Amino acid sequence: MQPTTPERWDGLIIGASLATLAGARGYGEIIDGALGWRDGRITYAGPRDALPGPPSSLAREVIESDGWITPGLVDCHTHLVFAGDRAREFELRLQGASYEEIARAGGGILSTVQAVRAADEDELLRQSLPRAHALLADGATTLEIKSGYGLDFANERKMLRVARRIGVELGITVRTTYLAAHALPPEFSDRPDAYIDAVIDWLPRLHEEGLVDAVDAFCEGIGFSPAQTRRVFDAARALGLPVKLHADQLSDLGGAGLVAEFDGLSADHVEHSSDASVRAMAQAGVVAVLLPGAFHVLRETRLPPLDAFREHQVVMAVATDCNPGTSPLMSLRQAMQLACIHFRLTPEEALRGATVHASRALGLADRGMLKVGMRADFVQWRVRHPAELGYWLGGALAGAVWVGGERRATQAS
Amino acid sequence: MQPTTPERWDGLIIGASLATLAGARGYGEIIDGALGWRDGRITYAGPRDALPGPPSSLAREVIESDGWITPGLVDCHTHLVFAGDRAREFELRLQGASYEEIARAGGGILSTVQAVRAADEDELLRQSLPRAHALLADGATTLEIKSGYGLDFANERKMLRVARRIGVELGITVRTTYLAAHALPPEFSDRPDAYIDAVIDWLPRLHEEGLVDAVDAFCEGIGFSPAQTRRVFDAARALGLPVKLHADQLSDLGGAGLVAEFDGLSADHVEHSSDASVRAMAQAGVVAVLLPGAFHVLRETRLPPLDAFREHQVVMAVATDCNPGTSPLMSLRQAMQLACIHFRLTPEEALRGATVHASRALGLADRGMLKVGMRADFVQWRVRHPAELGYWLGGALAGAVWVGGERRATQAS
Ligand SMILES: [Zn+2]
Ligand SMILES: [Zn+2]
Repeated sequence: MQPTTPERWDGLIIGASLATLAGARGYGEIIDGALGWRDGRITYAGPRDALPGPPSSLAREVIESDGWITPGLVDCHTHLVFAGDRAREFELRLQGASYEEIARAGGGILSTVQAVRAADEDELLRQSLPRAHALLADGATTLEIKSGYGLDFANERKMLRVARRIGVELGITVRTTYLAAHALPPEFSDRPDAYIDAVIDWLPRLHEEGLVDAVDAFCEGIGFSPAQTRRVFDAARALGLPVKLHADQLSDLGGAGLVAEFDGLSADHVEHSSDASVRAMAQAGVVAVLLPGAFHVLRETRLPPLDAFREHQVVMAVATDCNPGTSPLMSLRQAMQLACIHFRLTPEEALRGATVHASRALGLADRGMLKVGMRADFVQWRVRHPAELGYWLGGALAGAVWVGGERRATQAS
Repeated sequence: MQPTTPERWDGLIIGASLATLAGARGYGEIIDGALGWRDGRITYAGPRDALPGPPSSLAREVIESDGWITPGLVDCHTHLVFAGDRAREFELRLQGASYEEIARAGGGILSTVQAVRAADEDELLRQSLPRAHALLADGATTLEIKSGYGLDFANERKMLRVARRIGVELGITVRTTYLAAHALPPEFSDRPDAYIDAVIDWLPRLHEEGLVDAVDAFCEGIGFSPAQTRRVFDAARALGLPVKLHADQLSDLGGAGLVAEFDGLSADHVEHSSDASVRAMAQAGVVAVLLPGAFHVLRETRLPPLDAFREHQVVMAVATDCNPGTSPLMSLRQAMQLACIHFRLTPEEALRGATVHASRALGLADRGMLKVGMRADFVQWRVRHPAELGYWLGGALAGAVWVGGERRATQAS
């Protein structure tokens, strides 16, 4: 029998400061910190001078670093699996084309549906992967990805399979969301209730294949009604799947309140949510997911009820909403900057929104903070202070990204 | 005597499409194009199938590519040489601090002046280089860099020397602008005219050292008056140096008209420029430099007179204004996106603004288009259409950047 030696950590970073986000307020700053991990979990996150021994005795690999380390960012709302792009439509709109003209020129969400349906699974993966890579390179180590451009069984399934494959290709956590109730496909025009029947029919079959982590819908005057959304949520509940919602973006249909009624994960957009909905969210612990990219591109002026969220302690997440129509945004850090400018979030709120609060919006309790036992997902940033993450547009700030204790490529590397 | 053979080009790219911007309108699209160069100049920019021979017979190196090639971007307005950052001030402001509180906490432009004065030349270069690298990596192959945080002879000189060294380090063109009339240094408080005397005194000495390509000032109620600006411009004219101006950003002091009176290169910001100023700019061929980064960060609402510029054929450039106080922006492509959203420029206008029009704003006639005889500064982008350059936020779109026919590193490489 071999003599037992205390097991060493896989890695230990020293020389950088930590923004642990471990407390309820502030960055959880540890100046001149140290971060150790083993088997993909954090084993130490504290001051360097409180380490239990000399670094080289503690870990197989000791890395000298600088700047700041934060938890890996978590993008809790994306539509990044799609084919084609809508840059020409963006251009037509800026040239003054009307929505009708754009629709006649083949624009709008149904153009993305067509492109997704036309692409086979490998092609859809090929076109979507660079967006996931870009998000990872700028610090996002967990991604949520929605379906919703297939709008029939085979194509919703294809999108969800591509989302899963992105997780495998990048070696990161991808949480999939079934969003068949995103738009009405041409086959069901003028028959939204019949389409909801189909959406509800497809769900258990896709869930059985392990393709669905949560269920979402687009509840809006130009989307689906609260009654139709409720039917989708009932179907999710019957399968034990958590719900979330595109809620109250353009008008107040009480969507955020509906999520609360179903003890859902998050209400997303929420520009028009009422005070009653905010209270219901607080009661049910629903996260408000802010999507400043769409707000920016659509030049919205109605702000989400930020002060009410703060007052009622509804936690706010920030996400890219990466999608070809309203939020062509491939960096969660840039979403944080837009949240600071358009929504007047502080950089600290934006960083919490893209880490600990975003994790909560995905129902993931094992990440979003630098804390012993949490996943070893973290980013070393070339900054003097974590407030810079909400301040700069552009630049290669992510010096190094670790996922489950493994180092990944960044823009800067 | 050796037999003469026709000299081959240094390089030839095939397989990508070109946005030459060579005509007065449109992208100058050449689908399935070819681009050849020798000795740092473009020797061919046209359809692949019109090449005068098989590719390998024409060039020493033939590169198969895809996507789109545009001229290298030209950032014609930056303050990227500075020390420190103002992220904490950004955070304080978002926490609701007043300007007084920020000033007491050591914020504002004078905090940057202090940091610049405290840094020696090497340290200032070390802190500034990553910003220049980031701009280059996202496609900017020519940079303008201003002084204006030194505000005394030695420190203005230090800033301009660092700007020149950035050009050498990166092997790109850097155009320096003397902006001592940027703010009133503490030594001259309440004595702006005496400070202008000093500014005018320093100029010929710095020009003699080859440090000044153009002269700028901040003409504003909170800056210098038109009369003071005129004195600086007179001093520039006496040395044969072109002028430009931070004009009409917060109020209309007639700054853009003053630039026209001096046949200057550009009037920058120009949100409040009057119709008379626009006409004078048109007459004198002054470029309007739009700075959407500052507009975005300051949440301005007053748009520059865009329709008047179009009507009177005042050409519009787009620049980052990269600076720590009002435009922490390290990507000219992101400035293009902000120009499309905030100013409703079309992606084509934004691209012209960041290439051919920006070159004109710097008085450089040898770049900004893909045309035989122009500098071989160009970027290969991973896009389906050049409109995408004004559409995406984030991502690593620049597949490869060439400066004077030499390939450089990008975010994506
Ligand atoms: Zn969405
Ligand atoms: Zn400026």
